[in-house]
Amino acid sequence: MSRDPDASLIVIDGLQYSNWDRPLFEELRAGGITAVHATIAYWENAAETLRTIAAWRRRFRQHGDLIRPALTGEDIRAAKRAGRTAIVLGFQNCTPIEGDPALVELFHGLGVRLMQLTYNHQTLLGGGCYEPVDSGLTRLGREVVAEMNRVGMIVDLSHSGERTTLEAIETSARPVVISHANPAWFHDVPRNKSDAVLKALAARGGLLGFSIYPLHIGGADRTRRQFCDMIRRTVDLMGIDHVGFGTDSVRGWPDEVLSWMRAGRQVGPDEGERPSWPRWPDWFATPADFPNLADGLAESGFDDAEIAKIMGGNWLRLFDQGFGPPAATDSP
Amino acid sequence: MSRDPDASLIVIDGLQYSNWDRPLFEELRAGGITAVHATIAYWENAAETLRTIAAWRRRFRQHGDLIRPALTGEDIRAAKRAGRTAIVLGFQNCTPIEGDPALVELFHGLGVRLMQLTYNHQTLLGGGCYEPVDSGLTRLGREVVAEMNRVGMIVDLSHSGERTTLEAIETSARPVVISHANPAWFHDVPRNKSDAVLKALAARGGLLGFSIYPLHIGGADRTRRQFCDMIRRTVDLMGIDHVGFGTDSVRGWPDEVLSWMRAGRQVGPDEGERPSWPRWPDWFATPADFPNLADGLAESGFDDAEIAKIMGGNWLRLFDQGFGPPAATDSP
Repeated sequence: MSRDPDASLIVIDGLQYSNWDRPLFEELRAGGITAVHATIAYWENAAETLRTIAAWRRRFRQHGDLIRPALTGEDIRAAKRAGRTAIVLGFQNCTPIEGDPALVELFHGLGVRLMQLTYNHQTLLGGGCYEPVDSGLTRLGREVVAEMNRVGMIVDLSHSGERTTLEAIETSARPVVISHANPAWFHDVPRNKSDAVLKALAARGGLLGFSIYPLHIGGADRTRRQFCDMIRRTVDLMGIDHVGFGTDSVRGWPDEVLSWMRAGRQVGPDEGERPSWPRWPDWFATPADFPNLADGLAESGFDDAEIAKIMGGNWLRLFDQGFGPPAATDSP
Repeated sequence: MSRDPDASLIVIDGLQYSNWDRPLFEELRAGGITAVHATIAYWENAAETLRTIAAWRRRFRQHGDLIRPALTGEDIRAAKRAGRTAIVLGFQNCTPIEGDPALVELFHGLGVRLMQLTYNHQTLLGGGCYEPVDSGLTRLGREVVAEMNRVGMIVDLSHSGERTTLEAIETSARPVVISHANPAWFHDVPRNKSDAVLKALAARGGLLGFSIYPLHIGGADRTRRQFCDMIRRTVDLMGIDHVGFGTDSVRGWPDEVLSWMRAGRQVGPDEGERPSWPRWPDWFATPADFPNLADGLAESGFDDAEIAKIMGGNWLRLFDQGFGPPAATDSP
């Protein structure tokens, strides 16, 4: 049922979090994926994050026939030409900078290209989407956004509260992203976003990555057609240049990691709920199913040029613009 | 002009932050001070705080003829009998626990007996008094307060925003303190407290330590009589059992430390204002002037029993109750 794959298509997944090993890199290649934004921190401090980056350096050496690091958009095009998948490193929380704006530049120098200001909870920078009260962007949050703008680290607001999200969109001098979420009207959970947020995001040049994480779409029984029709309607709101995918694919982790992701250090190992990873829809069981997404977009009425933008072209434009200091021609 | 000093008087200063050395310990003895709550962290992480505690262990060994550690209220009485000043260690911020409630118990085990949830800015636990928006007590903040209640570390709200302060007073199962601040009506700055906060604090068994830091009283020209009359009026609001001193005495630090205290890691060393330490009032130039405070209280109409409570008796009761797990007879 798959269309003839377009070998020239740039395919970018705006967020995955996996327990990476060679079979998972082969899965990326099977999906024809040009680049992946890979999460490397949820709750880690600076020193722990250095060790995680070091582990990625080893992976790049050991699996250079499958993957390579991406520090620029051009690195992604080069990976495409070489038949490799480019890996973009990013944080889903601000814990690695330990409240110090100066660490933004250092982690940028080590290859980190996106950072969420918050992960569900209150951080030093802003309010998470599961806090009872959203502080908005804090004083330190404004400094860190300015520093991310200066060095070229993209602000990601996927897990932020509404107020913090709107304030960060407005405050950032450069486009920001919501790398993995959906419109709240499609499935109304705190992680999904209001139309007000999505319109503001697009108006400032940003990008929404559509998530296929089952808890963001309403469960594994959602059809591909329902999902892609949702994209159609969201494009009507945001415009064709401001959407992509951020599947939130999670591969190879035991259930314990889900508890850790959600609570970090805040709940001891013997307390609280014991969540399990959810079942994924048949049409996107793993990243190897990425071609199904292009088929679904066609079925929902997108033409080839539109499909190219959603599959990766828009992400590539954002990365070209965002992964480095502002160009002299950028508006202030 | 000083009254005959009452040799049996327990004198407790609810907050000092100094660059401690032997002459400063001698100053405490000159002031007849039985115990001091000494700040050991503003922005330090866990490892840095361990080194600071280790430095205190060395001071206790080297200056055992002047000071000793206080882990309980009884340690303070024993120091009084031995002619030493007891040192209570505390944090003015939550950075040492690095977002991990489990570190509360560990630092308690190392002698830390009070912790502020916030220092001016947003923290993982709550909103600071200088943030534009006060998040209130966060989800993690509630967990940390419960853990502090469990192990016997007193919650200090001196630098918290109004909402966070009221929520923490309400949430804490055990009395909390505002170790160093004044009523906002006396000098209206964000660091001073509303009558609503002071009434709620007293209603839950807590304590306000009156600050003499010049920026909290309206400058060095405030008279002792004005200051002690303010105490008189505050006692009318809160009751005689819920007030003490927390002078916020700062000795021996260069001006650079003031910049660091205020901004932590959030402003680089070459940016921003260059504040200087303020001039102190003549009637409280150093902690050696503590007897002047007892004289001032008498002048403002307090009797000897009331003076004993304000000078240290109330703090000692709080410490007796608060420095350890709840007694079986405590209300839940």
